[in-house]
Amino acid sequence: MTARRLRLGMVGGGEGSFIGAVHRLAARMDDQYELVAGAFSSDPQRSARSGEALHVPADRIYADFETMARAEGARADRIDVVSVVTPNDSHYVICSAFLRAGIGVICDKPLTTTIEDARALRSLVQQTGLPFVVTHTYAGYPMVREARAMVAGGVLGKIRLVQVEYPQDWLSEPVRSKQADWRLDPAKSGPTGCTGDIGTHAHHLACYVSGLAVETLLAELSSMVPGRVLDDNAGMLLRFRGGARGMLWASQVAPGDPNGLRARVYGERGSLAWVQQAPNQLLHTPLGDATRTLFLGMKGLSPVAGARVPAGHPEGYLEAFAQLYTDAAAVIRAHAESGRAESELDLLPGIDAGVRGVAFIMAALRSSQAGGVWTAIEE
Amino acid sequence: MTARRLRLGMVGGGEGSFIGAVHRLAARMDDQYELVAGAFSSDPQRSARSGEALHVPADRIYADFETMARAEGARADRIDVVSVVTPNDSHYVICSAFLRAGIGVICDKPLTTTIEDARALRSLVQQTGLPFVVTHTYAGYPMVREARAMVAGGVLGKIRLVQVEYPQDWLSEPVRSKQADWRLDPAKSGPTGCTGDIGTHAHHLACYVSGLAVETLLAELSSMVPGRVLDDNAGMLLRFRGGARGMLWASQVAPGDPNGLRARVYGERGSLAWVQQAPNQLLHTPLGDATRTLFLGMKGLSPVAGARVPAGHPEGYLEAFAQLYTDAAAVIRAHAESGRAESELDLLPGIDAGVRGVAFIMAALRSSQAGGVWTAIEE
Amino acid sequence: MTARRLRLGMVGGGEGSFIGAVHRLAARMDDQYELVAGAFSSDPQRSARSGEALHVPADRIYADFETMARAEGARADRIDVVSVVTPNDSHYVICSAFLRAGIGVICDKPLTTTIEDARALRSLVQQTGLPFVVTHTYAGYPMVREARAMVAGGVLGKIRLVQVEYPQDWLSEPVRSKQADWRLDPAKSGPTGCTGDIGTHAHHLACYVSGLAVETLLAELSSMVPGRVLDDNAGMLLRFRGGARGMLWASQVAPGDPNGLRARVYGERGSLAWVQQAPNQLLHTPLGDATRTLFLGMKGLSPVAGARVPAGHPEGYLEAFAQLYTDAAAVIRAHAESGRAESELDLLPGIDAGVRGVAFIMAALRSSQAGGVWTAIEE
Amino acid sequence: MTARRLRLGMVGGGEGSFIGAVHRLAARMDDQYELVAGAFSSDPQRSARSGEALHVPADRIYADFETMARAEGARADRIDVVSVVTPNDSHYVICSAFLRAGIGVICDKPLTTTIEDARALRSLVQQTGLPFVVTHTYAGYPMVREARAMVAGGVLGKIRLVQVEYPQDWLSEPVRSKQADWRLDPAKSGPTGCTGDIGTHAHHLACYVSGLAVETLLAELSSMVPGRVLDDNAGMLLRFRGGARGMLWASQVAPGDPNGLRARVYGERGSLAWVQQAPNQLLHTPLGDATRTLFLGMKGLSPVAGARVPAGHPEGYLEAFAQLYTDAAAVIRAHAESGRAESELDLLPGIDAGVRGVAFIMAALRSSQAGGVWTAIEE
Repeated sequence: MTARRLRLGMVGGGEGSFIGAVHRLAARMDDQYELVAGAFSSDPQRSARSGEALHVPADRIYADFETMARAEGARADRIDVVSVVTPNDSHYVICSAFLRAGIGVICDKPLTTTIEDARALRSLVQQTGLPFVVTHTYAGYPMVREARAMVAGGVLGKIRLVQVEYPQDWLSEPVRSKQADWRLDPAKSGPTGCTGDIGTHAHHLACYVSGLAVETLLAELSSMVPGRVLDDNAGMLLRFRGGARGMLWASQVAPGDPNGLRARVYGERGSLAWVQQAPNQLLHTPLGDATRTLFLGMKGLSPVAGARVPAGHPEGYLEAFAQLYTDAAAVIRAHAESGRAESELDLLPGIDAGVRGVAFIMAALRSSQAGGVWTAIEE
Repeated sequence: MTARRLRLGMVGGGEGSFIGAVHRLAARMDDQYELVAGAFSSDPQRSARSGEALHVPADRIYADFETMARAEGARADRIDVVSVVTPNDSHYVICSAFLRAGIGVICDKPLTTTIEDARALRSLVQQTGLPFVVTHTYAGYPMVREARAMVAGGVLGKIRLVQVEYPQDWLSEPVRSKQADWRLDPAKSGPTGCTGDIGTHAHHLACYVSGLAVETLLAELSSMVPGRVLDDNAGMLLRFRGGARGMLWASQVAPGDPNGLRARVYGERGSLAWVQQAPNQLLHTPLGDATRTLFLGMKGLSPVAGARVPAGHPEGYLEAFAQLYTDAAAVIRAHAESGRAESELDLLPGIDAGVRGVAFIMAALRSSQAGGVWTAIEE
Repeated sequence: MTARRLRLGMVGGGEGSFIGAVHRLAARMDDQYELVAGAFSSDPQRSARSGEALHVPADRIYADFETMARAEGARADRIDVVSVVTPNDSHYVICSAFLRAGIGVICDKPLTTTIEDARALRSLVQQTGLPFVVTHTYAGYPMVREARAMVAGGVLGKIRLVQVEYPQDWLSEPVRSKQADWRLDPAKSGPTGCTGDIGTHAHHLACYVSGLAVETLLAELSSMVPGRVLDDNAGMLLRFRGGARGMLWASQVAPGDPNGLRARVYGERGSLAWVQQAPNQLLHTPLGDATRTLFLGMKGLSPVAGARVPAGHPEGYLEAFAQLYTDAAAVIRAHAESGRAESELDLLPGIDAGVRGVAFIMAALRSSQAGGVWTAIEE
Repeated sequence: MTARRLRLGMVGGGEGSFIGAVHRLAARMDDQYELVAGAFSSDPQRSARSGEALHVPADRIYADFETMARAEGARADRIDVVSVVTPNDSHYVICSAFLRAGIGVICDKPLTTTIEDARALRSLVQQTGLPFVVTHTYAGYPMVREARAMVAGGVLGKIRLVQVEYPQDWLSEPVRSKQADWRLDPAKSGPTGCTGDIGTHAHHLACYVSGLAVETLLAELSSMVPGRVLDDNAGMLLRFRGGARGMLWASQVAPGDPNGLRARVYGERGSLAWVQQAPNQLLHTPLGDATRTLFLGMKGLSPVAGARVPAGHPEGYLEAFAQLYTDAAAVIRAHAESGRAESELDLLPGIDAGVRGVAFIMAALRSSQAGGVWTAIEE
């Protein structure tokens, strides 16, 4: 028998939202969800307009998230999960409301704007046992998963170095836009700019692929554009648990790479390199041998590196994002049967990855404010 | 007011089908369609199983396409369009049946296995005035459309050369699989192998980007793998209307490129190059200047090169395929209002492109069989 | 004991010559030669000025090549070899004069402007038993030699396809320059333009790497720039002895690649790809496996792929050219001892490669003039 | 009138030396030098054998550098300059001896193993007014010079970021070889390993291209291979005079890049990127526009980016090295006429660059030993 589609709700993501549309498209791709409810904007009329355009039944378009959490929590056919795609500062209250209403959450990153909120959410997730996913998108790319599997399988031997970088260019000048404004406003974005916005992705990717945790870091956060309050460039040295070393660079003032996330992992027996703008390749260099260009869909990859189309047909960002939703569907279905969800979801970033991301941001900020000192990441 | 989703039917694409799943995913991506009917397999039980898994109502899962065309044609809420995703030899009869039932068609390529069938379908489309789309996927890539717009806008000046190639590797050895078997069987695939399967894509891309028609060609088709009946390699010289020259290479015995479609167009004032495996880039070389790497989402592109995500976030094959479906939705909606569809759909390959593709195959075959003589493409 | 440097003479290559300077630099690189004599220009004053600037003793700077051949032939310390770096139309008479004077030759390509001249030179070389080298430069690149060795060693299995291309852009417009003028003048260049100038390089590379001879070809030569007499674009289909197929494209009106020579060889068990603008790499794809990026200086390469510097330190065109000179030095020294030189020099293109190059040009021209018919290469 | 070739002497570089052969080849390339004297090894017999093989007259092959400096200093036809290509620990005494003998020096990097020695050499150079060149090879690449000229010309606007890295792989395992042994021995190499060996190149390149000096740095030096005394990996944060920030990574345990030096410079109006393994390209991204791939030999480059061959014909490491020698020849000839040499030689790294390199090494070492603190570079 065929399983029914999961009922999806959404908070945020109304007209003009970039990331809300991405979440919906990702949810649709593998046909595991249907969007049936939402509070799409803090402006009720806008929420209504958005919901209608999305074919959401009028009685499940809500004026605010509190009403939505309460109403959905009370329905027999309530949503199976809610996607939270608002600016960072509201993640905590929204996620809390839905968890308390007994509804699992798929939340954008960074999880919260304070470490206390992050830890409180973690407690709530642990208490409720509900599914909770944080959309570190890049964990959804098949070749990132292949890299993770190769490292875990010992292909590189003991890991020595992890070099990760995430240059963007879109804040090279003073810009005004829906996307830029809230990210550059500490009230909405939290205490950092590019560190929280994209540094967290780089940090997550470094750990996800290497299987290692960053123990301490030393950071310098800078604001290159005059008048900017939050950092738009961050350089860091990393020390991983077990002795590996690394470097992390995140920048939003680096013309040349619109979205240049890339990671390199070096071990005793070889290295792996992955570049987000060519995501269907993974470069593997066995020590002393030629670099091998592994590619999506080729024979011999790990089962975790599944492709939707045959080799040579590129996948992209939306497919990676969809993978998180598809993995989440499995978790949600398993929870519905067993009544329990894992806090660590293996391939899928969960609450622990979320808390670690916030702890990373705070450590980087403290290190930089202290003039560059080694600082522990405290989850 | 929000337009309703279009009702989509499908013929073929049951369990284990690659291209059926791609069509459905493409239809879903931009949320313009819902799949409501289908004859998914010539085996009725398999059709039923497939339809159920796809959430298709039981009463609209059909045992065969004739029944489906008749039944759907008679419904008030009949499907708006049918996707035909069967092997080549059945395209003609299936498309004809639906057109006669008053239902528009989205058909896989090549259109038919004989030029007579192709022309007959063209007549039927002209008579009925129904929407008809042929899924030359690569016409859906935004940077291919940008290239087409640049050429049309005169950026390269008069076109002199078009070099196009499509190497694949998957038939380098004698292989057996659902995908390989019908493609290598003249009864299902038609009179050519790789020429019809991928040479048509290369031919379409060359014309689509350059805005030029191939007038005559000279071809050598070869079968490299012992025992193979149909061609697995094809080399061609091309003469375009207006005097441009070109070359076309298609191969399924070329290890190194799982799906290496690429096109280069050279004019008096510069060139463009596009590679399917890095589809979000377009290389533009103004004569005498540095090559410029245009990329999806950058400022200044033509409106036809729209992106679903911001610059630097890669799109891929499924998004390109989805673009054809989304364009088709616009055509279908316009037809519903006006009662008329265009046979040439500008950005979207239609019946004329389909006939041209079959004429290309036949010209290549005749040229090769004659030992390599210049042969006209006769639509 | 250390061998003395070989005494080198030169005909052509005076002030303003590009290729003469390249030959001299190549001769100097591995310190096997010293330039001691020359007729550097048909203008005696210019020859004298050029010779003086090159530190050539005044009594060995000659006003013309006939005088030089006679005078050098009569000296006890005569030159060991002469480099002929004049336009194509004079190769035959100059080479003949030196061979008759008992002096071996290093001649630029194409060997001659008629097949009769080429065959006559071959006879002369056979009669005299003197060393004779034709500078098909690209045969000097280590990774080209590695490719040749891999094919010869059976790494690819039986060869099925050879795709070779050589696009340049510098004749995209009507241009006037020392380099362009003689190449576009049939009186100096011979009966073809880009076919003889660079098509010969592509043809040689295809054969050199694959170890196969082109048996017949079918060509279309075109002149894209109005008013141009000779071809500036050539497309060809190739049939190799033994059944392999291929395509060759040469163009001097292709903006985007200043010097885009590249070759791909496909066999039953894999492929190799080499690109002149990234010459220190060689892409090897074993069938069904990841592409391996072999690189100059890596462990495990064939001895014929020797590097002057450690891995990762790029070599280029001049080193490739130097390799031909260094190989020639070995041939010349061996001849001095044994009194005999081989007409086929294995890694080093000799008189037979030269004749084949001219035969290739003539076959392409005949095929094109006949409207595109399969034409044998007749050496 | 043609200038005579300069008389070159060499200390070190005997049989089996890598860098000595490179220096000689570089000196030969543009035909500005002839090697006439040398003390090629500390073993007199080996020195004699090496000199003979290099065609050096027997009476100018010396058993040790002191004798050579004294004897050459006393000759009327004495060497114009000496190349010092010994391990680091002997640079100081050898350079001093030749400067005191009135002979200019071309010295390998790093200049010395202590900052005191470096400063003492600087004083001696200032006192004697003799030419002194330090072979930071990468400053010889034309596209590096183009980058420097573009930055100096304001193409990027004010510089914000400089990211430089130099991964190598050859010390990933415990290795024994002539090259490895002295580099890993503090007695010969100085107090650092990869920091002094290649970090200095990266530091020089960062400053050379950006036109900025590193004011302070924060470093972590690590030894990844068990039992290794000196660092084989170094990560650094950089603060440049004027406020720019940067990062530097040098590693000899990073499989995948045999010699992966690369630099990226970001300014308010765009960026430049250069990669040593593709040295004939320079990527220029004007803010908000497509990346432009500048290439050696293209029209419109600065005169400092001169090419020996036409566009599309690659140059490499040896040509870059040769450029330093050719520039040095101009300095030496100018000094011979004017009796004075500049301590800063603009495009050519001189004594000041040498001292800065040693100061960089010492700052990195002190910063790392202090556990990672911001440390000034004190020249």
